[in-house]
Amino acid sequence: MKGWNFCSDNVAGASPEILDALTRAGDGSVMPYGADPLTAKVEQQLREIFETDLTAYLVATGTAANSLALSAMCPPYGVVYCHPDSHVNVDECGAPEFYTGGAKLVTVDSTDGKLDAASLETALGAGWAGVEHHSQPSAVSLTQASEAGTVYKPDSIAAISAVCQAHGLGLHVDGARFANAILTLGCSPAEASWRVGVDALSFGATKNGALAAEAVIFFRPELTDGFRFRRKRAGHLFSKMRFLSAQFDAYLRDDLWLANARHANEMAARLAAGLAEIKGVTFLYPVEANELFVTLPEAVRDGLEADGFMFYPWAAGGPQCVRLVTAFDTPLEAVTSFVDSARRHAATV
Amino acid sequence: MKGWNFCSDNVAGASPEILDALTRAGDGSVMPYGADPLTAKVEQQLREIFETDLTAYLVATGTAANSLALSAMCPPYGVVYCHPDSHVNVDECGAPEFYTGGAKLVTVDSTDGKLDAASLETALGAGWAGVEHHSQPSAVSLTQASEAGTVYKPDSIAAISAVCQAHGLGLHVDGARFANAILTLGCSPAEASWRVGVDALSFGATKNGALAAEAVIFFRPELTDGFRFRRKRAGHLFSKMRFLSAQFDAYLRDDLWLANARHANEMAARLAAGLAEIKGVTFLYPVEANELFVTLPEAVRDGLEADGFMFYPWAAGGPQCVRLVTAFDTPLEAVTSFVDSARRHAATV
Amino acid sequence: MKGWNFCSDNVAGASPEILDALTRAGDGSVMPYGADPLTAKVEQQLREIFETDLTAYLVATGTAANSLALSAMCPPYGVVYCHPDSHVNVDECGAPEFYTGGAKLVTVDSTDGKLDAASLETALGAGWAGVEHHSQPSAVSLTQASEAGTVYKPDSIAAISAVCQAHGLGLHVDGARFANAILTLGCSPAEASWRVGVDALSFGATKNGALAAEAVIFFRPELTDGFRFRRKRAGHLFSKMRFLSAQFDAYLRDDLWLANARHANEMAARLAAGLAEIKGVTFLYPVEANELFVTLPEAVRDGLEADGFMFYPWAAGGPQCVRLVTAFDTPLEAVTSFVDSARRHAATV
Amino acid sequence: MKGWNFCSDNVAGASPEILDALTRAGDGSVMPYGADPLTAKVEQQLREIFETDLTAYLVATGTAANSLALSAMCPPYGVVYCHPDSHVNVDECGAPEFYTGGAKLVTVDSTDGKLDAASLETALGAGWAGVEHHSQPSAVSLTQASEAGTVYKPDSIAAISAVCQAHGLGLHVDGARFANAILTLGCSPAEASWRVGVDALSFGATKNGALAAEAVIFFRPELTDGFRFRRKRAGHLFSKMRFLSAQFDAYLRDDLWLANARHANEMAARLAAGLAEIKGVTFLYPVEANELFVTLPEAVRDGLEADGFMFYPWAAGGPQCVRLVTAFDTPLEAVTSFVDSARRHAATV
Repeated sequence: MKGWNFCSDNVAGASPEILDALTRAGDGSVMPYGADPLTAKVEQQLREIFETDLTAYLVATGTAANSLALSAMCPPYGVVYCHPDSHVNVDECGAPEFYTGGAKLVTVDSTDGKLDAASLETALGAGWAGVEHHSQPSAVSLTQASEAGTVYKPDSIAAISAVCQAHGLGLHVDGARFANAILTLGCSPAEASWRVGVDALSFGATKNGALAAEAVIFFRPELTDGFRFRRKRAGHLFSKMRFLSAQFDAYLRDDLWLANARHANEMAARLAAGLAEIKGVTFLYPVEANELFVTLPEAVRDGLEADGFMFYPWAAGGPQCVRLVTAFDTPLEAVTSFVDSARRHAATV
Repeated sequence: MKGWNFCSDNVAGASPEILDALTRAGDGSVMPYGADPLTAKVEQQLREIFETDLTAYLVATGTAANSLALSAMCPPYGVVYCHPDSHVNVDECGAPEFYTGGAKLVTVDSTDGKLDAASLETALGAGWAGVEHHSQPSAVSLTQASEAGTVYKPDSIAAISAVCQAHGLGLHVDGARFANAILTLGCSPAEASWRVGVDALSFGATKNGALAAEAVIFFRPELTDGFRFRRKRAGHLFSKMRFLSAQFDAYLRDDLWLANARHANEMAARLAAGLAEIKGVTFLYPVEANELFVTLPEAVRDGLEADGFMFYPWAAGGPQCVRLVTAFDTPLEAVTSFVDSARRHAATV
Repeated sequence: MKGWNFCSDNVAGASPEILDALTRAGDGSVMPYGADPLTAKVEQQLREIFETDLTAYLVATGTAANSLALSAMCPPYGVVYCHPDSHVNVDECGAPEFYTGGAKLVTVDSTDGKLDAASLETALGAGWAGVEHHSQPSAVSLTQASEAGTVYKPDSIAAISAVCQAHGLGLHVDGARFANAILTLGCSPAEASWRVGVDALSFGATKNGALAAEAVIFFRPELTDGFRFRRKRAGHLFSKMRFLSAQFDAYLRDDLWLANARHANEMAARLAAGLAEIKGVTFLYPVEANELFVTLPEAVRDGLEADGFMFYPWAAGGPQCVRLVTAFDTPLEAVTSFVDSARRHAATV
Repeated sequence: MKGWNFCSDNVAGASPEILDALTRAGDGSVMPYGADPLTAKVEQQLREIFETDLTAYLVATGTAANSLALSAMCPPYGVVYCHPDSHVNVDECGAPEFYTGGAKLVTVDSTDGKLDAASLETALGAGWAGVEHHSQPSAVSLTQASEAGTVYKPDSIAAISAVCQAHGLGLHVDGARFANAILTLGCSPAEASWRVGVDALSFGATKNGALAAEAVIFFRPELTDGFRFRRKRAGHLFSKMRFLSAQFDAYLRDDLWLANARHANEMAARLAAGLAEIKGVTFLYPVEANELFVTLPEAVRDGLEADGFMFYPWAAGGPQCVRLVTAFDTPLEAVTSFVDSARRHAATV
């Protein structure tokens, strides 16, 4: 039996609309490094979607987007507060430290994979600000949807932003799965970003149907000082920028970005619903986007692997906990057959 | 009248074969971050083309390739010797300094845009090695084809390599236009790289038909220590690596890379031949690849611009000097009409 | 009433023997940057004291010593494991991150202010080694005596070293108070360092009678590669090196370093003994060197402050917890009068 | 015959007044890290000497002073323009690159070891400003007195400052030998610094009688943002700051700094006058401070070395060129006997 791959949304390919856009963009001469019409158009599209006069810089990877954004908000002697499991903290091989020139990531504990305002306030209470012996509190980075597949409500972000403003910190959102979160919240992009105090957003497309495209969006113009130079000297300025822009153009056109995320979320919800009915299956976190963290009975887990399904263990949830991720292109058949397999193996216990 | 764009080979689009390969690669699930079959295949293709057991890492931009390669060869307290006009020195916004953690680029003067062994030896004679007051000589970076559109002969590289070896320096080649150089030399890739002592090569595809794809190739295994971590923490590890690999797969298949470069070189040669016959046109450097540096009579230059042709001024050659670059997709018509226009305007002088 | 200052051992002045040595060293011409006889002599003295063929580099501050030592053991993409309260982690404004080029300090919880081998092993069990998404485990830094005023027994260090060796990590000791620890242990410097697997030691003099002098000592020759260049480019190579060396020469001569630390420890022990008899006084950690962490009844604390005694609060121990530090020059009268004052104010409760 | 050491002013010892001040400062408890009365007093003394409301930070080495100052004026993607022979460019092992996080030092040629406004303007004409491919012009660093022993007149500095202001660059002065220059100019410290547009000054004491003490002086308050954190994270904040301040206190008291420099300058002038009368001796640069660059007949040079005199060769001036440096403690006898020896050996030719 052929299984399906639930390891990550980055095992997915690319949306046909985006691949077509690349092909269309491949013809003829245009000026390089972003001085092309498509790049200007994409920034305009983002302004319309976010309903504000933002600045956007395109790059190819989420790690680049996050690290560059943080380097604009945090001096070399700064502190970025983040969740212990956040991508910036544990999955980027120290990229934020590299890009900021040696800033410190300080983790703030919380529940369901999300920072909360109170724990952030406690962390800031250590009294580092203004004292030269300590790295200086400079920014907060939160992940939307979080690494636990949970979603920050706008008022939670607003509460975190209030702490940031009281302490003079910038607020960055790693939005590799921002589309998935927006759909769960049922709110507008603006309501989940600048209207609740977000200063900079890594707006992801790669995990949601693009090949390799992310936008660093700034909602405060002063943060953009020097950003072009930081991007270039990091090797993240594409000469043939049109090919990043073409991905975004197709991604944003006709709400493809929302359609893709909606599908991924629906597949996750169906998968969760199916697994919830199986005895012995428990969920580590609420399923609010396109990721599930589930503890499977040993026979179920072994059986699924024997059937060829692929997924990663999730050590933080214990030895039987696994992570399952759906994507824009996860077929319903993949979900159905996973649940069927799980149910079948559960019956053998 | 519609002109043509000779500003750079990065104003070109992408080869249809490469765009097709992307589309084909876009379907289905594969493991991310290079753990896919296509990435392994590309490294194998490169081994065959270079006839040695190299290691290759794919990234998306030339600046990333160069800076990452140099960071593997040069400590933070090191010196990279390079040409004053080299891309690493003047066109990467300090990327080598960023990636190495603060190494120093020291320029070595020479002729025709190329380093030579004697001037390098002189620079090394300053006696910095081993003296703690000075950044330490660590690497040499040369550009093939050079920023002047000229080509290093293998024996010139061998002579530079001999100096490097005598002084314990690594030798890096910025090969953004390596294909163009190979064709001019009529030698094999091996004969222009590791056989003459090159340790690391930025093997470019972007300027020659890819969308955004470069390979960092190491010919000495010890240089690869830690490289994976450097690439990741710079945000240059693609999650959907298949899309970098697909570009290279198509680029290398059926010698597309050579065919593309051959066309660009031929267009440059025809352009040079046509312009050489026009009175008052002089060449700053020999035309050996796909770039021309020509001084045009004022009326000719103005007339070409009025006719809509696009190109950059080249200040180093004086006020009337311009750079003309051909690419894999430059139509013969572009060359013909450029020469026609130049001839017509020259006749009016 | 005049109080005494127990804020830190850096509120102390300098040993007369060391000041005399400076004056003696100030005359006449000697070659700079360490090419003087005194610098060579000091390294030899350290070899005798540590009974091994070490390499020593003098610098002026503990932060410089620690950060430079770690930069020799940890690549930019590395991890240094340390205690949450360690100086490198919270009191150096990100110096280790700066000097390593962006390494990550990961904290390991433990008891009594000390790392232990088991918790380190657990931290290493996260599976980061060799996986390019994560900063790479590279070094462990422990503090002897610890920031809690406690002392690692040699077998504890040996156990930590065994974990380091199993995982390929370097072992650094921040020995700002190494002398104080040695005396408590009653062992030789060798038995508390290289014989139990320490690779690099920041051997402090500043807190123990010098003006500003620390030695970075390497017990493994390969760690010294490039160290001279790192020290120079950090601005920590003194041109008039004789004045660092003269401090060390006097510090090591006739065991001044041990005599100074012995006095500080004795004053701490007397202070602890006196306070222990006062009702309501409790100790946060065992008193094993020259630091006390004590919870004082509110009336006692307020009374001591009213009497002019100076000390810092220690928030981690609760609102009534304070830190008291003795030094080489703490007079017995300071201890006696502190205990008298505390006793008197306790009686009023 | 015993010779004398003219290698550098850092082969000198320390002024007795400064050594006495250290001894006096060594007694009793004071608060650390600059929160002591002496440190406050020194900043006040500097304000009086410079006749303005400056900010001063003490450090121990000139490399630290220069690099920290530049890091406050130049972003990681910046350019510092400087003289090819400047200490920041060639004698600090890349410290400015380290401290700025990878800025680029671009050299500007000129005469007599000094930058001039016209050559700076030419360098700035390369058109890098605002173009993301290039490191961004950010600061100029000049050396007063220069590495050639020559002195900038205030109007030369004003002309350079005018260029800086026109292009938005900060102006830093490496004043390791500022006192020597002031005396030659016969102007006030203010007239050679902020009154002619200097933004930051490394005000040296080490070469002029201190053990190890330099002040980073900012004349523009906005440059001090974050400086305390940069100093601390570089390990250049002294815990026992009183010992840096005591050096400066004695250095500035009763114009010791001027008396010391006056002596050094006078010894240099006498040495120059004596050598100028010897046939075959020529001077590479005018002698305007305490350094001479002289070409000696081979017999003279060899004879001086045979007589035990010490000095460094100066390769830039040809094989027979040497550098001679006098200091605050150079005895007249040293000068006399050097000239006598030279004259004697010249007579044998």
